[in-house]
Amino acid sequence: MKNDSTICAIATSPGNGAIAVIRLSGPEAISITETLFKSIIKGKKLHLQKANTIHFGSMILNETLIDEVLVAVFLGPHSYTGEDVVEISCHGSKYIQQQILFALTFLGAKMAEPGEYTMRAFMNGKMDLSQAEAVADLISSESAAAHKMAINQMRGGFSKEISILREQLVSFSSLIELELDFSEEDVEFANRDALKQLISHIKDIIEKLVKSFALGNVIKNGVPVAIVGRPNVGKSTLLNILLKEDKAIVSEIAGTTRDTIEDVITIEGIQFRFTDTAGIRKTTDTIESLGIDRTFAKITQSRIILLLVDATQTESDIEKQIEEINPAIDQELIIVYNKIDLYDKQSASNITSTLFSQSHPVVNLSAKLQLHTDKLISLLLNTIENKDFSQTDVVVSNARHYEALNKALEASVRVSDGLSSSLTTDFIAMDIRAILHFLGEITGEISTDEILGSIFSKFCIGK
Amino acid sequence: MKNDSTICAIATSPGNGAIAVIRLSGPEAISITETLFKSIIKGKKLHLQKANTIHFGSMILNETLIDEVLVAVFLGPHSYTGEDVVEISCHGSKYIQQQILFALTFLGAKMAEPGEYTMRAFMNGKMDLSQAEAVADLISSESAAAHKMAINQMRGGFSKEISILREQLVSFSSLIELELDFSEEDVEFANRDALKQLISHIKDIIEKLVKSFALGNVIKNGVPVAIVGRPNVGKSTLLNILLKEDKAIVSEIAGTTRDTIEDVITIEGIQFRFTDTAGIRKTTDTIESLGIDRTFAKITQSRIILLLVDATQTESDIEKQIEEINPAIDQELIIVYNKIDLYDKQSASNITSTLFSQSHPVVNLSAKLQLHTDKLISLLLNTIENKDFSQTDVVVSNARHYEALNKALEASVRVSDGLSSSLTTDFIAMDIRAILHFLGEITGEISTDEILGSIFSKFCIGK
Repeated sequence: MKNDSTICAIATSPGNGAIAVIRLSGPEAISITETLFKSIIKGKKLHLQKANTIHFGSMILNETLIDEVLVAVFLGPHSYTGEDVVEISCHGSKYIQQQILFALTFLGAKMAEPGEYTMRAFMNGKMDLSQAEAVADLISSESAAAHKMAINQMRGGFSKEISILREQLVSFSSLIELELDFSEEDVEFANRDALKQLISHIKDIIEKLVKSFALGNVIKNGVPVAIVGRPNVGKSTLLNILLKEDKAIVSEIAGTTRDTIEDVITIEGIQFRFTDTAGIRKTTDTIESLGIDRTFAKITQSRIILLLVDATQTESDIEKQIEEINPAIDQELIIVYNKIDLYDKQSASNITSTLFSQSHPVVNLSAKLQLHTDKLISLLLNTIENKDFSQTDVVVSNARHYEALNKALEASVRVSDGLSSSLTTDFIAMDIRAILHFLGEITGEISTDEILGSIFSKFCIGK
Repeated sequence: MKNDSTICAIATSPGNGAIAVIRLSGPEAISITETLFKSIIKGKKLHLQKANTIHFGSMILNETLIDEVLVAVFLGPHSYTGEDVVEISCHGSKYIQQQILFALTFLGAKMAEPGEYTMRAFMNGKMDLSQAEAVADLISSESAAAHKMAINQMRGGFSKEISILREQLVSFSSLIELELDFSEEDVEFANRDALKQLISHIKDIIEKLVKSFALGNVIKNGVPVAIVGRPNVGKSTLLNILLKEDKAIVSEIAGTTRDTIEDVITIEGIQFRFTDTAGIRKTTDTIESLGIDRTFAKITQSRIILLLVDATQTESDIEKQIEEINPAIDQELIIVYNKIDLYDKQSASNITSTLFSQSHPVVNLSAKLQLHTDKLISLLLNTIENKDFSQTDVVVSNARHYEALNKALEASVRVSDGLSSSLTTDFIAMDIRAILHFLGEITGEISTDEILGSIFSKFCIGK
């Protein structure tokens, strides 16, 4: 698996900055850099330097000075990739970055593929596959919860859980395989009760992990929320108020930029992705009905639907709207009773109590006056189960892992059923092998070029 | 001038990347980092580490793991700023960058102002002012020529030239000042012939530097080119052809993005900024005349005007257009005779020879068939004098330096005239002081908070 080639790429965010870092990894990382590098200390040779040291000097190609740089030297196997690694800190102009990359490739380094550094780290045993995947998740984490989940996975929390399950099963598996070798003699090396117990334990843990994906997915991708309601009921005002509260928090931290396609509001580390929709009502106008089609599409894709109503609407009006929305079983419909400032308390509370009977949560507020908007925020957070996971809890957030876990779960159910119904050993052995296979796919103990290719191609270049 | 505070900022380009670098500088740089940092080697203390070494470990705030990082330690005065400096390489997520910045400021570091690192380097005598300014120029350099000019200035080429002039003058200046002290005795300590010679030499060099600003400005800011001509004469086709040739070159280098506001074409390291204009012709339509006003504004701001014509236009047509454009004395008008593929050679060459008499260069081409577009490119390049400067030639590109040089030049002319007309010593002394002052302003030997503020506020944060 050892790589003969030396790769190079810009490791920092593209664009101009004060500095940029270009990273090389591979057997020639130091010698290629040395060809370009001239230390301010006369006669200093990079290949004679200790690991984890930094050296100041010039990058020169064909007698033209490209830049004054800092060169950091890391020696394999004690580096990110496990190979010799050089990091060149240059001035952050795009021109200089390109010139240095050009010089490095001119001297034989090849441009790194997306994720190639991390792939090499995996190949060289520096991390397993789920840890490697967590590196990409960590870089794209935009919220506290996503960050916590990714860093736990990167530190090997998830891998450890999977490895323990696999180890426990491996010894049973070898006993069962042994039985197959002696199948004509009808012996039982593997204790069936102990196996039953282990499989039940494994099944429980995998089930717990599979379940955690609901949260993991929410944390990683955010919670889609559709705001629906009749025209002028205050959808935009509500959205602006929610955004404003969020922006006040966000703007304290320098460098934050906002996604402008959707309005994303981070509450307690979880991203809610709000889409303001066109109103819902039956129409015969073609263009308008297109807008309404789009509204319904957005509603279908949402996890939470905020139905905004006000006191000009009768109870049956509201009921009709709920009927039109027709929320799916995994969707949460929250009724937001807006403009409470315009009505007396009595009528508002009447409507609330009636609507409560409909089994949808209701919140009374005034978006305009910012009254009770905190109650809505609490309701939004309440829709998310187990959101207070700790830094050591394992939460599955990767669709590939989820798929593999589901397959492992199916196989473990078959083993469990097989053991109860005294199925022949060869079928049980096959399903145990399947569990081992699918768990192994997660950590990369079992992997194919295809799987690796599809995982690392989603990385950014330079990682 | 010593700074008590420790500053921190993200030094790499904002946004997500594989890694990001956060830089601290100041007396507490190491101790603040140490509070957050836990090495994988138990008990390792950052403040006991050697200069220019890198350490792997975790950043932890309030028992929450922010990231696994590399920490590079630099000890003053052997660092960029001359102070203790720490560079933290973290995973390049915006969330992590913000969390680390938050933790650092929480522990007492302050967010760096734009250019504050370089300002500290200047304050601590690591570089002079014109070198500091070159750092910003270097980062924003987008072409080979701009890069070469900035790096030469950063390496002190310009500073050296100025310092030599100043040194030569300083000794004369002190002799002249001495004469003033003994003014009643009418003695001459400073040899007037030698002074005359020196001033003439200084004047020549400053004049050369002032002149170089024309090129420096072109290199730094590009050459504005307006394309004008009647509708359908092929303006857009020509622009697209020029852009396409350029894009073919640029796309070989990864990560290049293009400025979409203007069409910028880099030819031999010099940027030509093309603006396609509305056609020019007299009109009574208000809206159309607005467009034509804008065309004339663009023409006025251009250094080169490409007038596109074709064979359907008579000679007097073309003459009328030239008259309307009315190029200024410092503008170059190039007549581009387009669509030569549609006409026979004879008529084309006739028109060319006639037009040549008008003292504007003419190029015959077909934008559509990409015939002779290289000739136009040569003509564009020919408009730039002395563009083949070497890496050691001093080219002035900074408007502040240009202004100071002009003032120094004026003063040296006054000294020169004064010496010829036997002006009294006190006037000559005053003008010599003025030369020293303005040259000193360039290198920062003479500076005010106001000048420094205005220079460094134009830097990016983190530099």
